[in-house]
Amino acid sequence: MKIGWIGLGAMGWPMAGHLHGAGRLDAVYNRSPEKASAFAEQHSGVRVKTGLAELAEAVDVIAICVSADHDLLAVIDAIEPGLQAGQRIVDHSTVSPTTARELAGRLRNKQVGFVDAPVTGGVEGAVKGTLAIMGGGEWEDFHALEPLFDAYCRVHHHLGPSGAGQAAKAVNQLMVAGIAEAVCESLALMDKLDLPREPMLELLAGGAAGNWFLDKRGRSMLADEFDIGFHPKLLFKDLKICKALCKEAGFESAVVDQALSDYKQLIDSGDNGRDISALIRIKSP
Amino acid sequence: MKIGWIGLGAMGWPMAGHLHGAGRLDAVYNRSPEKASAFAEQHSGVRVKTGLAELAEAVDVIAICVSADHDLLAVIDAIEPGLQAGQRIVDHSTVSPTTARELAGRLRNKQVGFVDAPVTGGVEGAVKGTLAIMGGGEWEDFHALEPLFDAYCRVHHHLGPSGAGQAAKAVNQLMVAGIAEAVCESLALMDKLDLPREPMLELLAGGAAGNWFLDKRGRSMLADEFDIGFHPKLLFKDLKICKALCKEAGFESAVVDQALSDYKQLIDSGDNGRDISALIRIKSP
Repeated sequence: MKIGWIGLGAMGWPMAGHLHGAGRLDAVYNRSPEKASAFAEQHSGVRVKTGLAELAEAVDVIAICVSADHDLLAVIDAIEPGLQAGQRIVDHSTVSPTTARELAGRLRNKQVGFVDAPVTGGVEGAVKGTLAIMGGGEWEDFHALEPLFDAYCRVHHHLGPSGAGQAAKAVNQLMVAGIAEAVCESLALMDKLDLPREPMLELLAGGAAGNWFLDKRGRSMLADEFDIGFHPKLLFKDLKICKALCKEAGFESAVVDQALSDYKQLIDSGDNGRDISALIRIKSP
Repeated sequence: MKIGWIGLGAMGWPMAGHLHGAGRLDAVYNRSPEKASAFAEQHSGVRVKTGLAELAEAVDVIAICVSADHDLLAVIDAIEPGLQAGQRIVDHSTVSPTTARELAGRLRNKQVGFVDAPVTGGVEGAVKGTLAIMGGGEWEDFHALEPLFDAYCRVHHHLGPSGAGQAAKAVNQLMVAGIAEAVCESLALMDKLDLPREPMLELLAGGAAGNWFLDKRGRSMLADEFDIGFHPKLLFKDLKICKALCKEAGFESAVVDQALSDYKQLIDSGDNGRDISALIRIKSP
């Protein structure tokens, strides 16, 4: 099974790296070709493809890790001329369930399997190879891809038909956004009350408020460091997907509404950091 | 150092039990005396005191674990006739920082040390003896009490003068309430979208949304079980303390405002369960 990887960003690079480490990666493509060349230099035996259709022609499985719906749609349009019946595409990007369903239908007509497989676990999870995958699509397609997933994931589950993985990711992002609100407000209040940071972080983490975001971002956000992590613009995009999904389902989410409003303010404020923990900047009076 | 314990509720009972296990508990008092008798029956050598002043006369350290400001004030009023210079009082209840400061001042006049030492870690933490203590007051008083804390806590820190422990607990409760909002909304949306519960819980817990509340309450709330845990009325009380503290500090908290509104609705709805995860009932459409 030859595998081609499209998208070598903060998540895609380490994920493709693990796939290479498992001896399963054949070719890569990236929108900015220097990054693909740099990847191939660091990972011997991996071929760089400069065209998307060319990559599609050369492999059995195409893994995609890009940012948003329009990026994914552009990738699919560009690889389509190179696709052959029996191939499989797995998309690790976070897009709307509707986009996932539409693409799966369109590719089914070409006898190409499409699996929506967004991931969670952050950049740390990608680097460590401990991501969690939320899968949607035909079970046979998902099952055939599981050996790949094992290279960069700790847990992966097939959750239903096309779009189910993206719907699950939207649920996950609601939780992530709500926890970020809670942690950023709490730490801003902690500073406002002049409570000592180090013992407070240990106490907060050790009780009923314990959470991943506090563990991984608590110290860095208090040190005003926002260089790595998950970009506010990406969470904002995910929350808009979640909002649309809630609307379709007739579900009211106070958490999504508050987070959309807060992240809009953060993004509009300009230099807003490259991690969602920069939210503390607008929570600190 | 003879120790007396006041308040044998869901938290106080197991905490006092650990103190007895460590060979450090002399006497107990509880508002409903049958509970104190039942405790003494299960913990040999512990004396039951039927009066608060009588308990105060008999020990060096008085530990208190009651529900709210007015309960604590009533206990202090009642023990006051029995207090002697050189004694120490440690309060594990969650009350306002103002109440803690006022009591510390009043007791200092009698040369009695008062430490505010609210705990976090839930009923599970109390049962396992793995609570976290947030301490305020004179450092000497806190330090003298640390051997007690070791019996039922994993971590304890002195955070500043009287009221600092309660201020820290308010910060903690803001985080707890915001996480509960995020988790309850997410799981309600998950059900609304017909996503399969068990794989979803594993995926959510395994990524960037991972948190204590999801681990400990996710399955039970989905099974409509709210029999144990932290009562919504107590969180509502804590959030009112936090709201007042925010107001004093000139701090706006969207999380506290939303949670106060939601828990008011939950409590007003009548049979609202005995754990804050019952919030999912008003989040499910």
